[in-house]
Amino acid sequence: MSKSDAEWISELVAPIKEDLLSGAAELALRAIVVFQTIFTEKAKETPEVVRGLIQQASKELVSGQPAMAPLFHLCNKVLIAIDDASTTQELSEKCQKTLDDYEKMLCESAATIADAAYDLIEPGSLVFAYSFSSTVVSALLNARARGRYFRVACTEARPSMEGRKLAARFASGGIEVIHTFDNAMSLILPNCATAFMGCDCIARPGVVNKVGSWMLAVACRELKVPLYALSGSEKFVGDERLFEFESHDRPGEEVWSDAPKGVSLLNHQFDLVPFDLLSGLVTETGVLREADIEAQMRKYKVHEALKLQPVAF
Amino acid sequence: MSKSDAEWISELVAPIKEDLLSGAAELALRAIVVFQTIFTEKAKETPEVVRGLIQQASKELVSGQPAMAPLFHLCNKVLIAIDDASTTQELSEKCQKTLDDYEKMLCESAATIADAAYDLIEPGSLVFAYSFSSTVVSALLNARARGRYFRVACTEARPSMEGRKLAARFASGGIEVIHTFDNAMSLILPNCATAFMGCDCIARPGVVNKVGSWMLAVACRELKVPLYALSGSEKFVGDERLFEFESHDRPGEEVWSDAPKGVSLLNHQFDLVPFDLLSGLVTETGVLREADIEAQMRKYKVHEALKLQPVAF
Repeated sequence: MSKSDAEWISELVAPIKEDLLSGAAELALRAIVVFQTIFTEKAKETPEVVRGLIQQASKELVSGQPAMAPLFHLCNKVLIAIDDASTTQELSEKCQKTLDDYEKMLCESAATIADAAYDLIEPGSLVFAYSFSSTVVSALLNARARGRYFRVACTEARPSMEGRKLAARFASGGIEVIHTFDNAMSLILPNCATAFMGCDCIARPGVVNKVGSWMLAVACRELKVPLYALSGSEKFVGDERLFEFESHDRPGEEVWSDAPKGVSLLNHQFDLVPFDLLSGLVTETGVLREADIEAQMRKYKVHEALKLQPVAF
Repeated sequence: MSKSDAEWISELVAPIKEDLLSGAAELALRAIVVFQTIFTEKAKETPEVVRGLIQQASKELVSGQPAMAPLFHLCNKVLIAIDDASTTQELSEKCQKTLDDYEKMLCESAATIADAAYDLIEPGSLVFAYSFSSTVVSALLNARARGRYFRVACTEARPSMEGRKLAARFASGGIEVIHTFDNAMSLILPNCATAFMGCDCIARPGVVNKVGSWMLAVACRELKVPLYALSGSEKFVGDERLFEFESHDRPGEEVWSDAPKGVSLLNHQFDLVPFDLLSGLVTETGVLREADIEAQMRKYKVHEALKLQPVAF
């Protein structure tokens, strides 16, 4: 691969790697555009060149957002689909079909989940929502559109403040929002009838989501507020991939730009909520409880380029 | 009272009302200077005038920082002490003696608490500290000075970020600090051997402290990290005063300066941690458990000027 091609891919992928405001499904939709750009711009190259570029983009997307299961599955499906394409035309067609199928699946899942979530929203209640999740947004806007009246409480989700994006989205959809900072969850949760979160990744140990989700889950249990994670089954991964989120460090300066000497800054983005802290996981196949998770853990083939390397000691 | 005198008092008191970075004991020390300024500057006025000014200052201090028990007790003691002074000279002397005794008591308490806290710090451990408390700062710096080695983890305490002040104070005292945002407590607490918080106010239902303390307490219990509140007994108030902290609203703009239409902002500063979420309350009379609290609830006389008004319905 030429240096300029490699740089071009890194530039294409960079905005997605740096995106701390979008949920997992939204990032997958953004990645679809990256793949389309590659095979459109490189239509005159050999299939080997295009495959190499798609492989580099996939590796960078997955390592840049290691908590985001839908991004991993999208890249994995694309790589497997184009593996045996013998012409660039064939490669493009197979890639586009995979992207179309994936987008359709994401949209259908979101719609089915929204319908399931509708029944969990008490009329006239205050509903808590954490961080940013397009699945949660579409579920609550759908309920509002179907005539259910409720208000939403949400918090900032420091340090990237995607909770403000969530608040703005609901407000512009005609839902009244009460907004506060994360450590004030304790003051608003007692008034909430239900809490919702999205999720980025699921395996046997639990669901991975924006850091703060564990605090929310523990608070909800203490206050007896049911907490549901809304998530399509494209979030399921093997247990071996679940803890990849721990490698997603961000610069300490995002937490405190002028910290004094002697202060180390920790800027991890995700935490793990064990299933026993959730009231249910709302997927397109229904509301799953802890006992149902095992059956959802399907085996899937992982493309060679995305296999995890054993940790060196 | 002349309009200019009333304005002068409001200006003297304003910085304390606006102070969101200092702990309760520190605010009481700042209030001492306000009283000294009043009787020094007004030495040529009648005792009625000076008493009126001190009364106005007391009312404004207590209503401006309604969660801060040491401020209430200081003002209450001063008002009772000067009630029967017949000359300005006598009033000044009585006031100064009350201030001196109070300051001495605060300092002696802090030293005794620091010695009690020493035994709670495991050598070589990581210790969590929340928000800003001069009692916690002096306890940990004292332990370090006595040769105990440990590190401190702390979080921001949004929205006023007094956790940064805490981090800076420890770092400048030679203690290594790990700092992160509030909702990332979940990632650092599992590595902590003990957690400490200060407190602003205590009565039978529990201790009042900076909002986020309840989240910390629930997380500590879940993770089996012992949590101690460090506090002199000047924090005890009657149950009827405990919930005064709920009136301490701050402007919503401090949370989000350009929130979109349809988003209401909540900016409460304090929450209540019930005793059953604490491992102990470390006071100058020893480490108290829930069963010991009742005996600490002493009766005290409340000056007419500081009596709570019945709520009108």
